[in-house]
Amino acid sequence: MQDFPLSESSHAHLTDLRSDTVTRPTRAMYERMQNAPIGDDGLDGDPSVRELEEAVAARLGKEAGLYVPTCTMANLLAVLSHAQRHEQVVLEANSHMYTTERGGSLLAGLAYTPVEGQSGAMDLDRLAAAIRPGAYRLGVGLIAMETSHNNAGGAILPPSHMRDVHALAMQAGVPVHIDGARLMNAAVALGVPATTLAGHAESVSLCLSKGLSAPVGAVLAASRSVIATARSYRKMLGGTQRQAGIVAAAGLEALQTMSARLTEDHARARKLSESLNGLGASLQASEPQTNIVQVKVGETGMTSHQWVDALSALDVLTRPWGERMLRCVMHRHIDDSDIEHAVAAFASVLERCGRT
Amino acid sequence: MQDFPLSESSHAHLTDLRSDTVTRPTRAMYERMQNAPIGDDGLDGDPSVRELEEAVAARLGKEAGLYVPTCTMANLLAVLSHAQRHEQVVLEANSHMYTTERGGSLLAGLAYTPVEGQSGAMDLDRLAAAIRPGAYRLGVGLIAMETSHNNAGGAILPPSHMRDVHALAMQAGVPVHIDGARLMNAAVALGVPATTLAGHAESVSLCLSKGLSAPVGAVLAASRSVIATARSYRKMLGGTQRQAGIVAAAGLEALQTMSARLTEDHARARKLSESLNGLGASLQASEPQTNIVQVKVGETGMTSHQWVDALSALDVLTRPWGERMLRCVMHRHIDDSDIEHAVAAFASVLERCGRT
Amino acid sequence: MQDFPLSESSHAHLTDLRSDTVTRPTRAMYERMQNAPIGDDGLDGDPSVRELEEAVAARLGKEAGLYVPTCTMANLLAVLSHAQRHEQVVLEANSHMYTTERGGSLLAGLAYTPVEGQSGAMDLDRLAAAIRPGAYRLGVGLIAMETSHNNAGGAILPPSHMRDVHALAMQAGVPVHIDGARLMNAAVALGVPATTLAGHAESVSLCLSKGLSAPVGAVLAASRSVIATARSYRKMLGGTQRQAGIVAAAGLEALQTMSARLTEDHARARKLSESLNGLGASLQASEPQTNIVQVKVGETGMTSHQWVDALSALDVLTRPWGERMLRCVMHRHIDDSDIEHAVAAFASVLERCGRT
Amino acid sequence: MQDFPLSESSHAHLTDLRSDTVTRPTRAMYERMQNAPIGDDGLDGDPSVRELEEAVAARLGKEAGLYVPTCTMANLLAVLSHAQRHEQVVLEANSHMYTTERGGSLLAGLAYTPVEGQSGAMDLDRLAAAIRPGAYRLGVGLIAMETSHNNAGGAILPPSHMRDVHALAMQAGVPVHIDGARLMNAAVALGVPATTLAGHAESVSLCLSKGLSAPVGAVLAASRSVIATARSYRKMLGGTQRQAGIVAAAGLEALQTMSARLTEDHARARKLSESLNGLGASLQASEPQTNIVQVKVGETGMTSHQWVDALSALDVLTRPWGERMLRCVMHRHIDDSDIEHAVAAFASVLERCGRT
Repeated sequence: MQDFPLSESSHAHLTDLRSDTVTRPTRAMYERMQNAPIGDDGLDGDPSVRELEEAVAARLGKEAGLYVPTCTMANLLAVLSHAQRHEQVVLEANSHMYTTERGGSLLAGLAYTPVEGQSGAMDLDRLAAAIRPGAYRLGVGLIAMETSHNNAGGAILPPSHMRDVHALAMQAGVPVHIDGARLMNAAVALGVPATTLAGHAESVSLCLSKGLSAPVGAVLAASRSVIATARSYRKMLGGTQRQAGIVAAAGLEALQTMSARLTEDHARARKLSESLNGLGASLQASEPQTNIVQVKVGETGMTSHQWVDALSALDVLTRPWGERMLRCVMHRHIDDSDIEHAVAAFASVLERCGRT
Repeated sequence: MQDFPLSESSHAHLTDLRSDTVTRPTRAMYERMQNAPIGDDGLDGDPSVRELEEAVAARLGKEAGLYVPTCTMANLLAVLSHAQRHEQVVLEANSHMYTTERGGSLLAGLAYTPVEGQSGAMDLDRLAAAIRPGAYRLGVGLIAMETSHNNAGGAILPPSHMRDVHALAMQAGVPVHIDGARLMNAAVALGVPATTLAGHAESVSLCLSKGLSAPVGAVLAASRSVIATARSYRKMLGGTQRQAGIVAAAGLEALQTMSARLTEDHARARKLSESLNGLGASLQASEPQTNIVQVKVGETGMTSHQWVDALSALDVLTRPWGERMLRCVMHRHIDDSDIEHAVAAFASVLERCGRT
Repeated sequence: MQDFPLSESSHAHLTDLRSDTVTRPTRAMYERMQNAPIGDDGLDGDPSVRELEEAVAARLGKEAGLYVPTCTMANLLAVLSHAQRHEQVVLEANSHMYTTERGGSLLAGLAYTPVEGQSGAMDLDRLAAAIRPGAYRLGVGLIAMETSHNNAGGAILPPSHMRDVHALAMQAGVPVHIDGARLMNAAVALGVPATTLAGHAESVSLCLSKGLSAPVGAVLAASRSVIATARSYRKMLGGTQRQAGIVAAAGLEALQTMSARLTEDHARARKLSESLNGLGASLQASEPQTNIVQVKVGETGMTSHQWVDALSALDVLTRPWGERMLRCVMHRHIDDSDIEHAVAAFASVLERCGRT
Repeated sequence: MQDFPLSESSHAHLTDLRSDTVTRPTRAMYERMQNAPIGDDGLDGDPSVRELEEAVAARLGKEAGLYVPTCTMANLLAVLSHAQRHEQVVLEANSHMYTTERGGSLLAGLAYTPVEGQSGAMDLDRLAAAIRPGAYRLGVGLIAMETSHNNAGGAILPPSHMRDVHALAMQAGVPVHIDGARLMNAAVALGVPATTLAGHAESVSLCLSKGLSAPVGAVLAASRSVIATARSYRKMLGGTQRQAGIVAAAGLEALQTMSARLTEDHARARKLSESLNGLGASLQASEPQTNIVQVKVGETGMTSHQWVDALSALDVLTRPWGERMLRCVMHRHIDDSDIEHAVAAFASVLERCGRT
């Protein structure tokens, strides 16, 4: 068994803040992978896959679940299952499903309609206007929300906003989907059960391989009939794996044991933000609601790409977010010493800019 | 670690001839999964995934490989990468890509054109007619072959046929793809290296989770530029997994160690076929070229579905193939005693029909 | 007003047998175009368009009609209105909708499934197999027939065949469409009202600009709800014209006055066929059921393209149909002297081949 | 010949301000329709269609033209011809191609990306951001502009803006299309030749049946190679009509004789706007740049739909534009007395509201 250098040993030299997708499985996940009962998920089913699907459905208050290789596929299956050809998918203009994932679903003859908003929350008047029927307008097949919201720096949609969107949608007879790539971060930060958030939608995706640390996989949860449709689309897209129980077992461990510790990531994000804001006015770190800190570097005289390179030379990995901003993401392999390490690296680069 | 009841113990009560997709990982695969170096295949790559991609590319004589969750996705990515909107994909009328998989790729505005043939091999005159340009005809973006051929009972395309198809295609400036879900069965049965077969196409898919026994996964192999295009489509479809090295490691073990033993499956398929044909004229088993035996039951007075149920009651699992035929597939969990068990079960059901 | 050289004067030097699409409007059509009441068919409607739509619907025994620029668009709207994304459109393998028109509709994520047959009529067993549901099979959204059948040389589907196809379809809950580009030729030749044929389908297209001689236009007839859906797709495709009543008026004249004379075209087709068959064994003319004669030239030592050129030099225009066959189509501008002219030209070319 | 009640007699009782699409052909157009030489545009071409295509291409400074039934189809063919599957079409958020026409082209697997702007002109910074390449971003296949701009109340894009957009596009290697449904209104109002505007794009559509008064039809102008591609898509969509020369002839008359008089429509639009603004503060008419006046009625205490009904009862036809605005369009059938009639009707309704 490998020695988990980043996760369970003392501080590693590399502080990898690029994404919570880099998280490796825990020792317990490896053990479950060894011992999981398995079958053929393309024939009569795999028992570990079924157990995971049922566990996620229960956690989100839905009738059924469907295991898929990635959260991108979970969102794509939701779109394909809810919306017919020539219908609109209405969603926030900076949401990941619009900016990064729409390629897959536009194959289905669907029209993505972005709605501008604030901190990841669609403006409700604009949303109402976008879904109003009209003589030459395409019908609306789906409304999608994302929480916590990646491009909005991990912002959490206020539950009252989610309720309002759902109410508008129900009035219009349109289903709602939640891109829950980081749903557990939102639930934990709000201190509510995931069902409270998931209740504002007809379907929800949940990613197991971000903060929850499973190696791969996601689950789509919805009604039995939506999941039956999604299951046949999963086959079409090539997402129906045979002895998938091996990796599903790691996902089950992730679901059962890894949510609670997300509060640690959120606390470290606040710590990092405060420390960076203390380094001087030219560096502006966002006030994080969950595990993501966005750092504006536009007034330091260096571009985001230059910052990424300079920090990388100091063994701190980050990602550019446009030309003037960096993104730092906390996760299980980031401990307090990593935060210190990162702050020191930022300070060092800043000093070199002469713009503290 | 689980106890591998089907694979490594003495004869199990259940003889599962439904498909070679039911094969479970070997102990060595489980070990490699534990110890594989991993990374983030959606960021800067996963070392075990890369090793597998390179190994498959080398095995098939192609420049590059791409790891995907299933062979269905490998074939779909080949279609999307080779063919533009409004082009035809020309392929044999009973091929798996036409009968079972075209749902995914028709999303891309592609026209599948089936060409009738014999034993899975397209009639060359019909193929030539199908790809001839014409005033109102759609262009041709891809020609696809399948070997060994599932719906043709595991038939192997003669290498000379593959060469002829490739020559026609090159003359027309059209790329060729091989659906290699069971390519290693064909290569082993012909006694040629896989490169010999793969050389007749611009891209080849290889499934790791059928006879090769990996739990999940397949690889698409092609030129670097085709793989780069396929990689971006893989992202769109939700096939880009994070710490995929864990399962890729099992695939690497499968690739390196499991091909040679496919000859055992082929020998048992012949044995089963001969024994069944000895049971009486109303039962007609195909002469297998690889690991699949098709058994015609149309003259026994029972439908294929009734046969499946009757055999299942005797602990022999098979699948109906239309109304008048069963399919039996040999694989690593079928030993000589399973063949005896299966033949005895067939005999017992046949006796009940009174049609020996 | 132009002088209608081909249609109403004595024999012209040019005998144009390429297609019945070359027919020009009659004097009466030009008069109706001048005097038609018109409106805005994209706003509150055009009275002449409405009158034509109602007249065609009545002629075909359907609730409603929709005027469109071409019969290709009528067929495309039928497909879009009946079939959902990822459904199959099942149709005869040589039908015009499959060989020539599928480009438009494959945009909609539909899978065209060709069924082999005889003289334009699908083999019923193959059709039944094609629409049988199966675990991984796409649903069936539409079955289409074509009568008279262009690529089958103007063959008429036997009404009993149409009834059988419709019965199979109804049993499977699948709607049927008739591509009626030349429906009136079939009805007139069978001596039955068009409603008799149209009754075997849920929707029917009727082309006004072939034998019926209108300059442009076709009508789709179906139930009110199908036509409402087709109307919104017509807008999407850019087929909703403003003062279309001008050309619709010509279509109305065509519908009311031009069907009866199609028997003349059919008689001349028989005359041409007999005369050509009398020229020697190397030339084989089909026995025409309607207004199309297919002439096999494969044994004359000249290709179809060489024949077209040689006949054209003698002022007889025809079209190649593959490499070894010509197509000759009778229509309103072909009189008895044209037939004599054409036969003489064929004889002259044949003599030159030395293969009489 | 019909008596042209609206167009050439004295003031009619009905003042139809709904759209310039209601314009009927002139007497000269009817005459040209009678005498036009015609052919088969689906076979070897129609001489009148060719003459129109060449005339429009020359007028717009492009190599070639393609006649189509509607401007919607012209725009759709431009999109299909320029952009490949999975590419973005970037265009202003209120443009007609985005709000009303995208249904057709989304069939092609294209992603429409709206860019917010002012008076129909995209914000250049937002445009530059939208077409910037990125790791997971779809490529950009086309940028589209619309002038004059329907939803912006007939606003004209400043030629300098068009030049800037074209420059950005050329830098990015992306072609530009102009939706020229009302291009001649823009050119006439600016006092520049149409080539000046058309020069800022690789393709331009021109509608013949709006202010130019032809009954139906539009032309797409572009390079020869783009038009060749568009021609084959026109066939696919069912836009290839046979004896289309009859209506093309009316379009040619429209092109040659009807542009100059558009200045009259513009003058009457200004007259109507001034008069309505003189009726009191609760009614706010836009300052028209061309032939469209938008009238805000939100502060009159009546909705747009109520206004439309009340004006209609006084024989003045208008259209609601959202809940709080009406649209009035000037055209050839609106003379000075119609303006007086309309103003009187507005005054009468306003009085009834008690909100003058």
